[in-house]
Amino acid sequence: MGSRAIGIGLAGVGGIGHVHAANLAAGVPGARLARVADSSASALRRIGQLYEVPSSRFYGDLLDDPRVDAVVIATPPATHPEMVQLATAAGKHVFCEKPLALDIESAEAGLSAAKRAGVVLQVGFHRRFDADYMLAKSLIARGELGRIYGFFDSMRDMEPPLSAEMSGAQQALLHDAACHDLDAARWLVGEVDEITTFGANLASEPLRAVGQVDHAITVLRFENGSLGTIDNTLASGYGFDCKCEIVGSEGTVRIDNPYLSNVELLTRRTSGFERTRTFLDRFEHAYPRELESFVDAVHRRAEVAVSGEDGLAAVVLATAAQRSLETNRSVRLRRRLCEGQVRYAMDEQ
Amino acid sequence: MGSRAIGIGLAGVGGIGHVHAANLAAGVPGARLARVADSSASALRRIGQLYEVPSSRFYGDLLDDPRVDAVVIATPPATHPEMVQLATAAGKHVFCEKPLALDIESAEAGLSAAKRAGVVLQVGFHRRFDADYMLAKSLIARGELGRIYGFFDSMRDMEPPLSAEMSGAQQALLHDAACHDLDAARWLVGEVDEITTFGANLASEPLRAVGQVDHAITVLRFENGSLGTIDNTLASGYGFDCKCEIVGSEGTVRIDNPYLSNVELLTRRTSGFERTRTFLDRFEHAYPRELESFVDAVHRRAEVAVSGEDGLAAVVLATAAQRSLETNRSVRLRRRLCEGQVRYAMDEQ
Amino acid sequence: MGSRAIGIGLAGVGGIGHVHAANLAAGVPGARLARVADSSASALRRIGQLYEVPSSRFYGDLLDDPRVDAVVIATPPATHPEMVQLATAAGKHVFCEKPLALDIESAEAGLSAAKRAGVVLQVGFHRRFDADYMLAKSLIARGELGRIYGFFDSMRDMEPPLSAEMSGAQQALLHDAACHDLDAARWLVGEVDEITTFGANLASEPLRAVGQVDHAITVLRFENGSLGTIDNTLASGYGFDCKCEIVGSEGTVRIDNPYLSNVELLTRRTSGFERTRTFLDRFEHAYPRELESFVDAVHRRAEVAVSGEDGLAAVVLATAAQRSLETNRSVRLRRRLCEGQVRYAMDEQ
Amino acid sequence: MGSRAIGIGLAGVGGIGHVHAANLAAGVPGARLARVADSSASALRRIGQLYEVPSSRFYGDLLDDPRVDAVVIATPPATHPEMVQLATAAGKHVFCEKPLALDIESAEAGLSAAKRAGVVLQVGFHRRFDADYMLAKSLIARGELGRIYGFFDSMRDMEPPLSAEMSGAQQALLHDAACHDLDAARWLVGEVDEITTFGANLASEPLRAVGQVDHAITVLRFENGSLGTIDNTLASGYGFDCKCEIVGSEGTVRIDNPYLSNVELLTRRTSGFERTRTFLDRFEHAYPRELESFVDAVHRRAEVAVSGEDGLAAVVLATAAQRSLETNRSVRLRRRLCEGQVRYAMDEQ
Repeated sequence: MGSRAIGIGLAGVGGIGHVHAANLAAGVPGARLARVADSSASALRRIGQLYEVPSSRFYGDLLDDPRVDAVVIATPPATHPEMVQLATAAGKHVFCEKPLALDIESAEAGLSAAKRAGVVLQVGFHRRFDADYMLAKSLIARGELGRIYGFFDSMRDMEPPLSAEMSGAQQALLHDAACHDLDAARWLVGEVDEITTFGANLASEPLRAVGQVDHAITVLRFENGSLGTIDNTLASGYGFDCKCEIVGSEGTVRIDNPYLSNVELLTRRTSGFERTRTFLDRFEHAYPRELESFVDAVHRRAEVAVSGEDGLAAVVLATAAQRSLETNRSVRLRRRLCEGQVRYAMDEQ
Repeated sequence: MGSRAIGIGLAGVGGIGHVHAANLAAGVPGARLARVADSSASALRRIGQLYEVPSSRFYGDLLDDPRVDAVVIATPPATHPEMVQLATAAGKHVFCEKPLALDIESAEAGLSAAKRAGVVLQVGFHRRFDADYMLAKSLIARGELGRIYGFFDSMRDMEPPLSAEMSGAQQALLHDAACHDLDAARWLVGEVDEITTFGANLASEPLRAVGQVDHAITVLRFENGSLGTIDNTLASGYGFDCKCEIVGSEGTVRIDNPYLSNVELLTRRTSGFERTRTFLDRFEHAYPRELESFVDAVHRRAEVAVSGEDGLAAVVLATAAQRSLETNRSVRLRRRLCEGQVRYAMDEQ
Repeated sequence: MGSRAIGIGLAGVGGIGHVHAANLAAGVPGARLARVADSSASALRRIGQLYEVPSSRFYGDLLDDPRVDAVVIATPPATHPEMVQLATAAGKHVFCEKPLALDIESAEAGLSAAKRAGVVLQVGFHRRFDADYMLAKSLIARGELGRIYGFFDSMRDMEPPLSAEMSGAQQALLHDAACHDLDAARWLVGEVDEITTFGANLASEPLRAVGQVDHAITVLRFENGSLGTIDNTLASGYGFDCKCEIVGSEGTVRIDNPYLSNVELLTRRTSGFERTRTFLDRFEHAYPRELESFVDAVHRRAEVAVSGEDGLAAVVLATAAQRSLETNRSVRLRRRLCEGQVRYAMDEQ
Repeated sequence: MGSRAIGIGLAGVGGIGHVHAANLAAGVPGARLARVADSSASALRRIGQLYEVPSSRFYGDLLDDPRVDAVVIATPPATHPEMVQLATAAGKHVFCEKPLALDIESAEAGLSAAKRAGVVLQVGFHRRFDADYMLAKSLIARGELGRIYGFFDSMRDMEPPLSAEMSGAQQALLHDAACHDLDAARWLVGEVDEITTFGANLASEPLRAVGQVDHAITVLRFENGSLGTIDNTLASGYGFDCKCEIVGSEGTVRIDNPYLSNVELLTRRTSGFERTRTFLDRFEHAYPRELESFVDAVHRRAEVAVSGEDGLAAVVLATAAQRSLETNRSVRLRRRLCEGQVRYAMDEQ
């Protein structure tokens, strides 16, 4: 393919798909937005008004388009496995939004399909492209923290969803939200041996009606012996809040949630900085970078920064967390290599 | 007793006992330091050089002294139950350092003894007298946080003990340190229904040798449905760190660990504020206040701010945490009233 | 006098006098509050209800009382010189609230009188007893900042006075408020060679009516060549704010204005810490310490921490600032020794 | 010209010119980098290795190139006036780095030339395109601060220049650095009536040798009666530091200097965030935005965000500051309209 710009087909232009559309339209070096697809005619119309790009309602049109070298999958999570299968079968490189799948088998099938087709597969864990997290990673990698003792991570959304459909209900908190924290845990500290999740429904009637939690606390025991906690809530009220602290023998890093600006307004009644309200306020800058990284990997046929294996591991951890939540037991994870592939087994304790 | 200053007998003048000695010597309104006792002759000598006060090596002398109306017990935790029994039998009011006991039966016996003797019994949870925690408590009590969703608390010590003896080994992390966090949880959020503790030995060879952990994560499920975490470590390295966050439907409070000063030093290499290194750096101001509160309660025969029941509850929670740690199970707590006394039962899940 | 507690006579029990009364009543080691005087019967009544202490409406009674060894002068600034004269004539040691006087001659006369009488004279610059300022001073003294390049200081009050009388009008901003900053400048950086003050009346109708400013910016040129600014306002609105930054070749220190607590309240609309609203919120802890220091100096017949010479220098600087404000010229200061006393001359540039 | 991309000729590719080259090469919407010129062959070589763009050593080639519609002038300050004259004579739109000139007459001549030629002229005050400053501006514009009382601004560079040539010596601190603060003062508060500058040479031998200061404090009196200070230093040591505080009757805004990241590293010895070390660490994001704004103004023939009049006003203020520094007098500014142009006169007080 040489240094020719690769054509990107974007599947799904609502929500995070819209963010990817805007970033691709603004220009990712070495790539051009070749086509978009979305089953919603109105979503396509909105995009058509903003960017000049061919569009279709059918994913098949995207895969049939010879100008499309790679697809960015930003459709609802439940559709990811089939989208990945079809894309790899069509020989397209794949950037798949997280989660790679909602069950382990589908995630494994996606990995195998990409490997068989010889295409590049990257998963959308944006935190790995955030400057703060990258700095923390490099401090850890350089040994500045010494031996890692603890990992303390929060991700809290401001408002619970107004309906269970909005949230994808059956997987909302762990598969969809906590997967970011679980990936960060593996990336920053290492593999996880045991996971225990505690949940509660405290704020959201729609989620309660379908038996889902809106608060979860997950305790991790890492392979290296250290411990960690993740807390997730869909109802923090005061804003979107994503913080991470890694305690080590020689140093500790805290990745704080930045404010929206460096401007403090002080009045007779209150003073303070404005807070981030959504994940976009916090991670907007990371999205173009993850696409740049993907395009670069396609060009150089190099290893991606967030592999299918990483995507699978996050699905495994989220599944284990969900099982722990349902059984009130810790879930022990075992990893083994099977024909060059990592495979996972899990036992309740 | 009227408005006459009450005589305080202080048992134990090392460590925290020295802090109480200094505060009593500096003057607690309505009280005077009448006598000190410590089995260590050298500890007594040190105190004798600093403050003019009668002293003995025997606790019995303290209890026999007619000028002693109340005792402050600051001896090692394992001795607390017997000290309380003897003091109440002698008709002395009791301020007992935390923990009230290292097992539930002894704590209950202490409560009963105080009740029988008709004396005042207060337990030394200093955090309840810290201005920051008091402000948080009042914000919660006024309803500014709405319904409580989550409780996130850390207490980390800078250095693990050099020997298992120093730490009291068999109870160090949960009975001795986490009991502060467990009491804060009850005080700020409410009663705890279920407790699960995870531990690891990562930094301290002496503790490992006696089978004890130096890191613990405790997950709480409160009676009101909310969740919480407590993390404790004996090896934070960067300083003593005690933080607490309570998330509610209408507001969230964060009690930060203050710096040692409001002076930032900026140089070519680094900039920042100096951190607290020990619990005294953080809670020094709370110690005189808890004694003032105790003395006031004795004078007015009023309810104490931290009751024997609170002391018992903390012993129960620490015991449940220890059991969870040992059995790898969550421990469910049940409370019932038995002849006007709260009694606890616990089941592993 | 030995180690006998010295008797303190307090002149003036309103405003800051009330603070001194409370601190003396609570107990300053080596001292006891022997008598209070105030021309206001109602002020005396208020104090009488709080503390058991003999009182009079006449200052003369205070000076005649043989139990009074030292006086604390907390009456309005204009009265300070005569109060100092009478006290020293009666052989009493003197702690005089700032400013020592409103003109240079009176300040010099006070110094001479104290010297003649052989009594201790200390001036009430509380900032020298604040832990943050003391830490900054020690960092500078130890050379951690290297050569000093700049001094940047703000002191801002939240609300302008409701009447010109309240503020003492003719000297409010410079003699009464900025004198703290001018003393801090001398203490932390060194002697001042040149002073230029700019003022404006922006917020206070009562002060405008009497031709006084409510905002001032003062530029200092120090003997060591460095520069500094002081900004003062009586209408900061958002709170009492006192900050100080000293920039040096090797390091810089910033003394921040602390918040009222370490508790952050985060809600849907705002988040932040509560601010200090008055100088007492900020410097409350410094007041007992300055009295302890004075009492200690009396007992030991030692040098005081804030001498009459320091008080005189602050009066000279405030007078120079006022002259600069009125003439729109920089004022150059010259110091010379005259019979062991520092004497000042000033020229407009 | 319609919606055709305008061709940009960049004059000067060292220092800030390199930043503009990189931003133009990365793509400014509606523009393309058409040619670069620099008298230094090695500088051109460096740029040639990074970006594919025609280049010349002569500015004349840039102006003769028909693909060049507009020039970005990033040569040393002393050359700006002639560069502007030549560009406008050639009918090119002009984006001129600050300062527009080093004397008032040259700045006025530049304005007249642009007006005669009917071309767009914008001056490079990047702070107006920084998100924090823009937020502060909008808060002020919406009246959230009420009436403005004070303006307090610092800009400090970490290291003095190693030679007087590097700094442009004769104008370094005021014309080159403080001009940013002076422009911010006008933009955020309003016109300035009086300016007084105090200077010192404390850190830089090369500047001392040529009679220049490396520290300056400038006091502003605004037309609306409020006061302000600007402090500038070339030797802050601890980092590049740019802060601004605007105090008003209803609210105060503080634009803080952000850290390099939101990552705090805590160790046994120190803790803190990494500081900005150069103006690029702080204002990197503002540079592409100012070019986008310029290109947009050229396309729409609209008013620019930072006009030639703004550039002239900053030159006038810097000149007045320099005169005040030299004469030890305040300089009063008077503005009048002369044939639709603002003209300035200044008197020493």
